[in-house]
Amino acid sequence: MQLLDALSWRYATKKMNGQPVAQENVDKILQAAYLAPTSSGLQPFKIIEITNKALREKIQPIAFGQSQIVDGSHLLVFAAWDNYTAERIDNIFSHTAAERGLPASTFDDYKARLKNLYLSRPADVNFEHAARQAYIAFGLAIAAAAELHVDATPMEGFDNAALDELLQLPEQGLKSVTILPLGYRDSENDWLVNQKKVRTPKEELFLQIA
Amino acid sequence: MQLLDALSWRYATKKMNGQPVAQENVDKILQAAYLAPTSSGLQPFKIIEITNKALREKIQPIAFGQSQIVDGSHLLVFAAWDNYTAERIDNIFSHTAAERGLPASTFDDYKARLKNLYLSRPADVNFEHAARQAYIAFGLAIAAAAELHVDATPMEGFDNAALDELLQLPEQGLKSVTILPLGYRDSENDWLVNQKKVRTPKEELFLQIA
Repeated sequence: MQLLDALSWRYATKKMNGQPVAQENVDKILQAAYLAPTSSGLQPFKIIEITNKALREKIQPIAFGQSQIVDGSHLLVFAAWDNYTAERIDNIFSHTAAERGLPASTFDDYKARLKNLYLSRPADVNFEHAARQAYIAFGLAIAAAAELHVDATPMEGFDNAALDELLQLPEQGLKSVTILPLGYRDSENDWLVNQKKVRTPKEELFLQIA
Repeated sequence: MQLLDALSWRYATKKMNGQPVAQENVDKILQAAYLAPTSSGLQPFKIIEITNKALREKIQPIAFGQSQIVDGSHLLVFAAWDNYTAERIDNIFSHTAAERGLPASTFDDYKARLKNLYLSRPADVNFEHAARQAYIAFGLAIAAAAELHVDATPMEGFDNAALDELLQLPEQGLKSVTILPLGYRDSENDWLVNQKKVRTPKEELFLQIA
């Protein structure tokens, strides 16, 4: 099964070799994130693809110096909506109705329910919900990279506020949640590459109720 | 590319036909979740696989009557750790060291850093972090199901507290985050099956900085 092979092949690459990833492959990785399911189809995030080297050099110290940010060729920044708003919800469903050739009023009841739920909650609760959706897309991007044998290092270890400021995310109603450098492993210099992949024993991770 | 084909094939199945999913396929779906990357490799969640019909019938009203919970054959419940604790962190790294044949002290510095970060934070902040990790596994389970042409319906729409109580999750230090019924689409009776898959326009979802 290709997905399981890909997930077994991948690891959180610690050292990349500088070889660039073909844009065609990056586009496929982004396509997997694009197709990710999200709650009510809201896709409450943006993915920022950074190839600019000078900008990646500015991001590296914000991420505790992790070298993959500059040794990879692309850096994906997953940034979630800072809140749900009536306008954002309306935009999504206007688009869906138009794409499906349905009257604009089709989703009125559904939109009203979502607004009733989301617009009464604090922004930080809505941001956490949006962040979870971004993680689905993040996971699928990692899987797509692995299927293409492109290395990717999932990273949460960075100063979110500093990255947000650098990328002017607050002005766009966004907050960074994770970043993902893409590149190729430097097998000779990566201490992790030959370490056994370890997971929690299945009897602790899984519970069956038959 | 198999992952993209799978993600294009899948949709949030609204009506399932009662045909059971072979356990062999469910095991592959769980294997994808098992291999999901998580922050520091902590895998801070549990996945509960429910086939018991009577229990699924009790869960259905907790999830606003959604029929897939009983018309599917398996229900996966993703439940995140309610908090990080020293014991949980120690257990993970003891296991990793043992599996890699390394001295038990190998991860002492790393564990200390994690404890310094996590144990000083409120439980709800740690739970949100754990929930995000569960969403990576959730996304990969959805992708694995799609690759096997097993239908799956990602669901957040349920009463978390009621499900937690029914499954005695608080006693296990867990809180439910999402559920995933597995089964097969009832193509004749599912209103969504022939609707166009719609996503946010790419120019709104993606930003390039070259």
